[in-house]
Amino acid sequence: MSGHPFDVDTAVVADGPDRFTATVTDRWHALGGGPNGGYLAALCVQALAQIIDFPDPLVMSTSFLRRARVGAAELHTQLLRSGRRIATGAVSLSQDGDIAVHTVASFTDFTTASGRTALFNEPPDLPPPEQCEDLVGGADLPGVSILDQFEYRVPELPGWRRGEPSGTASAELWLRFRDGRDADLAALPLLVDATAPAVLDLGAPGSSTIQLTTHIRARPAPGWLAVRIMTRYVIGGFHEEDVELWDDDGRLVAQGRQLALLAHG
Amino acid sequence: MSGHPFDVDTAVVADGPDRFTATVTDRWHALGGGPNGGYLAALCVQALAQIIDFPDPLVMSTSFLRRARVGAAELHTQLLRSGRRIATGAVSLSQDGDIAVHTVASFTDFTTASGRTALFNEPPDLPPPEQCEDLVGGADLPGVSILDQFEYRVPELPGWRRGEPSGTASAELWLRFRDGRDADLAALPLLVDATAPAVLDLGAPGSSTIQLTTHIRARPAPGWLAVRIMTRYVIGGFHEEDVELWDDDGRLVAQGRQLALLAHG
Repeated sequence: MSGHPFDVDTAVVADGPDRFTATVTDRWHALGGGPNGGYLAALCVQALAQIIDFPDPLVMSTSFLRRARVGAAELHTQLLRSGRRIATGAVSLSQDGDIAVHTVASFTDFTTASGRTALFNEPPDLPPPEQCEDLVGGADLPGVSILDQFEYRVPELPGWRRGEPSGTASAELWLRFRDGRDADLAALPLLVDATAPAVLDLGAPGSSTIQLTTHIRARPAPGWLAVRIMTRYVIGGFHEEDVELWDDDGRLVAQGRQLALLAHG
Repeated sequence: MSGHPFDVDTAVVADGPDRFTATVTDRWHALGGGPNGGYLAALCVQALAQIIDFPDPLVMSTSFLRRARVGAAELHTQLLRSGRRIATGAVSLSQDGDIAVHTVASFTDFTTASGRTALFNEPPDLPPPEQCEDLVGGADLPGVSILDQFEYRVPELPGWRRGEPSGTASAELWLRFRDGRDADLAALPLLVDATAPAVLDLGAPGSSTIQLTTHIRARPAPGWLAVRIMTRYVIGGFHEEDVELWDDDGRLVAQGRQLALLAHG
């Protein structure tokens, strides 16, 4: 295990059959306070990785039931099925006896994925990162510690960063770990949730994720990830948020979709 | 309960605390054989509806672990959290002691959804159903009993129906229950999976769903549903499939996304 905060903070320790312990840290706090959902999802996936014989996370759905707190957590895993190509398990993350987060994830071995490839969409069309602006440089966002973990580069500052929400809910930007750790399959469940919500440009102060589903599509190349983030439908306060992550070789590596509830202004 | 096949075939009977029985029928067989995934998801949601105090399914993720068979099934439910606005549970559907299907679903009460509405996309632009063609009229698809349950109307027959797959994986069409039962919240988890896969137009003979996540967005109005179905990325045989369902009033009522694996030709 590397000393990188992501690897340290998603480490799990076996504590009996199908039981692990971990520590939720304060280094991944999102807008609105509290640990980022993608961080908690990645932690759950790490626990499942201990009991599943396939190496690569493929698809995971995480339900956010209660706000998780900084401190000790227990993870209870259940193997649902181990098949020829895919294995699936469920895990609940509890604190003080209450389930805060629940994840179901399927794993596979991408080296055996021999089917065809056909793409009907392009990666984000972004200028090189060095020609882009730092999204959060100079931003006054106290307590949003996740901003210390990632770098974001945007072609131009979005409306919400200039105090003038644009009224549309989509963005394209560059993303990477600030300390140079490369993205990998383990980090993708966090990385799909590491960008500021697109609904900030609707003037919403934030959003609470109810459920986050991530499809892992390929092993990312080293370097920056290009993010495409979009909300198309806000209905009665509920909204989806779609995220695509593309690697430096122009390959789609993950798709995330969450259902969330707008915070009140 | 109505005598409609959907209501009959998704009925569950309590058999102890957190335990229900049901019968998987042969009326929802999909391309490739075996019960349609959306049907099984809807059945799982029905079981969870028995133990959850909120009336409306909101978001559900279903993992397909083994092929389900026609016949008796046991459903074991677990309430994960009942909160102020949302309650969440997990359910496994087993046959002969093996878990075939696993669903996690959250419920809410849409009458209390008081947040804002903002849409950044349009419903499918389809001619009226009566000016469209019957997608499956005259099709030779023996055993695909789900076609007896639904009507489909398309502006023109897609390439795969003419034996000339178009090479793109998207379609828009009309959908309704053949016997006139209106769509409702209970049926939406099936309806998002009731359309022929868009990848048929890539020349694939079919596709196996690994995981299906559905967001329920609104209570559908009576009448036809307009379907938008699309696959953007096939990578090593794995592909997502996105489905939107819009009601007769032009409102988005559900979004489905599945991760699936192309069948070999």
